[in-house]
Amino acid sequence: MAEADGTSSATPTEEMNGAGNLMDFLDEPFPDVGTYEDFHTIDWLREKSRDTDRHRKITSKSKESIWELIKSLLDAWSGWLVMLLIGLLSGTLAGVIDLAVDWMTDLKEGVCLSAFWYSHEQCCWTSNETTFADRDKCPQWQKWAELMTGYTEGAGVYVLNYFLYVLWALFFSFLAVSLVRVFAPYACGSGIPEIKTILSGFIIRGYLGKWTLLIKTVTLVLAVSSGLSLGKEGPLVHVACCCGNLFCSLFSKYSKNEGKRREVLSAAAAAGVSVAFGAPIGGVLFSLEEVSYYFPLKTLWRSFFAALVAAFTLRSINPFGNNRLVLFYVEYHTPWYMAELVPFILLGVFGGLWGTLFIRGNIAWCRRRKTTLLGKYPVLEVIVVTGITAILAFPNPYTRRSTSELISELFNDCGALESSQLCDYINNPNTTRPVDDIPDRPAGPGVYSALWQLTLALIFKIVITIFTFGMKIPSGLFIPSMAVGAIAGRIVGIAVEQMAYHHHDWIIFKNWCRPGADCVTPGLYAMVGAAACLGGVTRMTVSLVVIMFELTGGLEYIVPLMAAAVTSKWVADAFGKEGIYEAHIQLNGYPYLDQDEFTHRTLATDVMRPRRNEPPLSVLTQDSTTVEDVETLIKETDYNGFPVVVSRESERLIGFVQRRDLILAIKTARQKQDGVVSNSVVYFTEDAPQIPATNPQPLKLRRILNLSPFTVTDHTPMETVVDIFRKLGLRQCLVTRSGRLLGIITKKDVLRHMAQMMNQDPESIMFN
Amino acid sequence: MAEADGTSSATPTEEMNGAGNLMDFLDEPFPDVGTYEDFHTIDWLREKSRDTDRHRKITSKSKESIWELIKSLLDAWSGWLVMLLIGLLSGTLAGVIDLAVDWMTDLKEGVCLSAFWYSHEQCCWTSNETTFADRDKCPQWQKWAELMTGYTEGAGVYVLNYFLYVLWALFFSFLAVSLVRVFAPYACGSGIPEIKTILSGFIIRGYLGKWTLLIKTVTLVLAVSSGLSLGKEGPLVHVACCCGNLFCSLFSKYSKNEGKRREVLSAAAAAGVSVAFGAPIGGVLFSLEEVSYYFPLKTLWRSFFAALVAAFTLRSINPFGNNRLVLFYVEYHTPWYMAELVPFILLGVFGGLWGTLFIRGNIAWCRRRKTTLLGKYPVLEVIVVTGITAILAFPNPYTRRSTSELISELFNDCGALESSQLCDYINNPNTTRPVDDIPDRPAGPGVYSALWQLTLALIFKIVITIFTFGMKIPSGLFIPSMAVGAIAGRIVGIAVEQMAYHHHDWIIFKNWCRPGADCVTPGLYAMVGAAACLGGVTRMTVSLVVIMFELTGGLEYIVPLMAAAVTSKWVADAFGKEGIYEAHIQLNGYPYLDQDEFTHRTLATDVMRPRRNEPPLSVLTQDSTTVEDVETLIKETDYNGFPVVVSRESERLIGFVQRRDLILAIKTARQKQDGVVSNSVVYFTEDAPQIPATNPQPLKLRRILNLSPFTVTDHTPMETVVDIFRKLGLRQCLVTRSGRLLGIITKKDVLRHMAQMMNQDPESIMFN
Repeated sequence: MAEADGTSSATPTEEMNGAGNLMDFLDEPFPDVGTYEDFHTIDWLREKSRDTDRHRKITSKSKESIWELIKSLLDAWSGWLVMLLIGLLSGTLAGVIDLAVDWMTDLKEGVCLSAFWYSHEQCCWTSNETTFADRDKCPQWQKWAELMTGYTEGAGVYVLNYFLYVLWALFFSFLAVSLVRVFAPYACGSGIPEIKTILSGFIIRGYLGKWTLLIKTVTLVLAVSSGLSLGKEGPLVHVACCCGNLFCSLFSKYSKNEGKRREVLSAAAAAGVSVAFGAPIGGVLFSLEEVSYYFPLKTLWRSFFAALVAAFTLRSINPFGNNRLVLFYVEYHTPWYMAELVPFILLGVFGGLWGTLFIRGNIAWCRRRKTTLLGKYPVLEVIVVTGITAILAFPNPYTRRSTSELISELFNDCGALESSQLCDYINNPNTTRPVDDIPDRPAGPGVYSALWQLTLALIFKIVITIFTFGMKIPSGLFIPSMAVGAIAGRIVGIAVEQMAYHHHDWIIFKNWCRPGADCVTPGLYAMVGAAACLGGVTRMTVSLVVIMFELTGGLEYIVPLMAAAVTSKWVADAFGKEGIYEAHIQLNGYPYLDQDEFTHRTLATDVMRPRRNEPPLSVLTQDSTTVEDVETLIKETDYNGFPVVVSRESERLIGFVQRRDLILAIKTARQKQDGVVSNSVVYFTEDAPQIPATNPQPLKLRRILNLSPFTVTDHTPMETVVDIFRKLGLRQCLVTRSGRLLGIITKKDVLRHMAQMMNQDPESIMFN
Repeated sequence: MAEADGTSSATPTEEMNGAGNLMDFLDEPFPDVGTYEDFHTIDWLREKSRDTDRHRKITSKSKESIWELIKSLLDAWSGWLVMLLIGLLSGTLAGVIDLAVDWMTDLKEGVCLSAFWYSHEQCCWTSNETTFADRDKCPQWQKWAELMTGYTEGAGVYVLNYFLYVLWALFFSFLAVSLVRVFAPYACGSGIPEIKTILSGFIIRGYLGKWTLLIKTVTLVLAVSSGLSLGKEGPLVHVACCCGNLFCSLFSKYSKNEGKRREVLSAAAAAGVSVAFGAPIGGVLFSLEEVSYYFPLKTLWRSFFAALVAAFTLRSINPFGNNRLVLFYVEYHTPWYMAELVPFILLGVFGGLWGTLFIRGNIAWCRRRKTTLLGKYPVLEVIVVTGITAILAFPNPYTRRSTSELISELFNDCGALESSQLCDYINNPNTTRPVDDIPDRPAGPGVYSALWQLTLALIFKIVITIFTFGMKIPSGLFIPSMAVGAIAGRIVGIAVEQMAYHHHDWIIFKNWCRPGADCVTPGLYAMVGAAACLGGVTRMTVSLVVIMFELTGGLEYIVPLMAAAVTSKWVADAFGKEGIYEAHIQLNGYPYLDQDEFTHRTLATDVMRPRRNEPPLSVLTQDSTTVEDVETLIKETDYNGFPVVVSRESERLIGFVQRRDLILAIKTARQKQDGVVSNSVVYFTEDAPQIPATNPQPLKLRRILNLSPFTVTDHTPMETVVDIFRKLGLRQCLVTRSGRLLGIITKKDVLRHMAQMMNQDPESIMFN
């Protein structure tokens, strides 16, 4: 595409023709031409073209001197350098967040006397008086009530601890929401819908800025520590993308080109998921499948590098002290059996239903927040939800602890040394078996009471998460979704296990579950359930299975995970095609063109502007418009650009000029070029004709004219037009018939048409 | 794009206009319109459009009756069914090939007396007389000389075994090359270059046919068993794609749409790599990174499914008896140290150099084969190379055995029970350590003699592989490349290990290698070397690392693998951008548009036909060409299609008509429609005018006219044109200036221009 930034349209032909003319003020590039306004869509082809130009310049210069050669090499390596920096910073931030969350979550309950900056676990590790069985208890760690009253038991102590727990939670969440409100409004939410939109080529200035990075990191810690039903995984992707944007600004290659910048951001998103789940390959696939729009192979490779660096940085910080990147890493040792696919698929169905319920409920609530008074009091909303969450969560041990810890406990297989209530099985004293191979046992009373508590926790999590996601604090939904699935999965797992133990003569158990064998692993059910629920909400597929695979570290369990993920996606898709992120994109009216097939039978002529009864298209002519005409046109319309035609009669298209470039060019010309007045004629032709001296000086604007605007014919099916917009990343496209200009289709028109075809409100698409 | 197959161009507008006219013979679709000829390029947009039409039809019909609803559901599920079938068949074939290769490789040395269909290992497993230490020796397994003469020792016996080994090898390879020559010439080579080309949208009929599948499977076994320096991994991808093509023919959705068919083939390629390396995720990434052209997310997910099914099918066959999918699966237990990155990077450099040497040498040899007498005697060539290989391979124990076994031994860490010569270390009798943690030890004489033999094997493999790849038998280069790298890596590994043992006071070892510690794992070096060499030859990156990761099963070793893979790619890229597959595509002149950036500064006008001094473009007019004119044009030119303009004077474009469709339409019209004679006027307009009865009946051909041909302006930079061709999968594109038709650019023109810009012979691009 011939370029508007004053450099690339200088093709050999033109240079020849232009040689004999007057010096053109546009020969020197002037600032800001070729940039975009906030909340506008970028033109991918143009960005790519600009980068190729830059690259050509550097390559040709590099032959001139050693210094230029070194500069060109530095330029070539800057991509890798940016990836390294992103990996290091996002890994470090993830580590810091993990450590801080760990400490602050425990701070709600008590404090370490030997060193107040230790979390409960660290406090008792450093204590020598603790045995392995009592590893959670040590004199250095004191609950608040114990510290204040000296008593450790009693109803008063319980109430005091309860009260302080709620108070801390309210304090944390108030701090979080206030910081977000005051310093960085963009720091709220998970950020993934916006990142998807940005990566698809939309400009939201400040969304990935330094302040957002700082505030999001701090408030994320506060929000997670406050005990709200939210996770840090989604926001970590936002944090990593902020890091990416930060490092882009170090290199003009990335800071000045919105297309190249988005390549870096795609890789940063991969690094974010990599540290969130300790899954570098899963992170790359997540970026590819879920968030990225334009993902060339070069980006694939660099994303992988960034994801690995981030993972290794996090591992060297070792925030959980277990040499793993996440709390809920787990290794299973027993195989699964074909018959177990039935409960796994049922969990998939549950996951799909949960996904549908969550998306519908959450979107309805968010819409209410947007349209009613509720949206006016975000701080109050956060305080109230935190209060309710804390009050309901404290009495139940499974909701009181952090959600990551809960998931970790649910995923874990009951080993011989497990002290959890969930592992309160009745052991057969006659058998001594190795740790890894404990046969199925009857459940003890602890398991049954745990089941009740888990059921209550499940209902609580399901309800509260719907209201939490979308509040004005950083909030991810990966962890709450996984928690819902893990609880359901563990319950199902225990049920199947007990059935298999008590009824191994049933035909379904007969073949694979002999008495005394270890047939059922309830932890695996929890993991399958978590995958199903996450899949139902986000509609991730391959990346989800790969992330879960990296969490278990064995190909063995891919089939159950996959069966659940597929079922969950199918069930959820039956109720609505959109995942939670697409739903939020739509709710906010972002101009995001998703990858779904467009199957309706409309033509370009049905979508283009002007419509049948509208006034004709605003066009410029190549040699008969005056400066005043142009200024009037700019004042009277708000189009982003204007087609240029040979003459109004022939309507033969010669190019397209951007509104922004036109304004800048006329402004500059009026300042710098003598004789340009209101009735100067604007020329878009190669040569301005010789004109009498009495006439005002003409204004030559060919340099800002895009000589290769994209055109389709009026008979082009919309499915092809949508495909072209999507694959080439266009901003607008002109419509012609037999060489005559008929109209224009912008990305907004396409999105509105798609919304209309799906019986949605086309006016919900807000930006262009 | 409006369609040429007689269905989709019936837009509402046109249907209205056409209602009052005579019954048009084109109302009924006639056969073969919309299909492609052999060795032609498909039009992706058109295929996609056709599929959307088909989908629309099924959806609207599904509301009519239960039966149609069931049919529409079956249609929706057929994709998954095809994937399941591909996974099952390719997994089964891989298992059969593995078992057959195992047996036939051993058959060159001897036979199992208890059951001749047992391989050496199986024979001795079933024997009760064998102890673990002597697991390779058992009375049931007899070498040929032993069976014939009764002696087991002596020079005569050795010579007889040698002679019979060479004879078997010659017999196998002669059988393989003869079968390929007689039954399926397409079964030769690795197949990956052709599959890449096919997936990019080229038609090679029979390349993925049933005969190719059958013959390739059989001859692959023969070729690998003959001991030639080739692998089964690449051809397995071809075999899997043949399976994919086979199952496509069961569903009209896939068999009648070349675009949809390619989605299935992409997934089949993933299944092929999945069984070749036991790496389902790596397989999907390989398909994405290396072979596929158009890879929508839906395909990603289905590929993953096919890859998993294939892997599990192969695992249930369990060809190696180790519950693993490949012979060289390995688990390491010791960590690596930062300082080791130096030898790893050196191995990367070696891999890059090997890649360059191999590609240059192999391409030079293949070019010689194409241009000289050598190409006339493929059978003789195979026989000679087999003879030389067998004669040189037999005396060296590391080349005599199958290459997979060699790689497996090189990858293995020396455990306590390892009987290999490579593990002949001098043990310290005073220490008793667990199996996993054997400290570094001084090398014994066996290791030193093994080193010499390995060096000879390395040189032999390097030379012979260059001449083997590209012969007229199925031949993959993954295994030979890996073998070269593994040998080099093991040698380096042993050297570093011995250095570390004898000099642990050196500053580089001091920090991490205390005496008595297990610091260096030579097997890991072999794996890193294998990755480097494979990367140098194929230029795979992410998929390579993921495949290797799945072979070791630990995130721990990703960094060394990645360091080596990156270095190898950079070094090899410095000598030439192309991997071996691209080089072979170029050698054969296939029309493959690769993903590299086009950075030259040319415009569409420089590339389009007609050139400045050529006769004008052959066009049809919308209402003034006679049938005879059209027939003359078809006879005199060999263009694939003709633009249709309003009139020769105005040159305003209205559409594009395919040559094939035009021929078919005129032929059908002459047969079926009365009154169509040579001077009938051909109308491409919506309505044919009322004409006097004396004039011949007009021929209306609007239905085969593509009303939305793709156009660019003459000022469009070629980088944009290349991008459009690549992303939209175009076959041709028309060039206009101010609405006037100037010329046409075909994919061949683009490829020739690219070749010219890279100083290559543009005439090497052969097909269109």
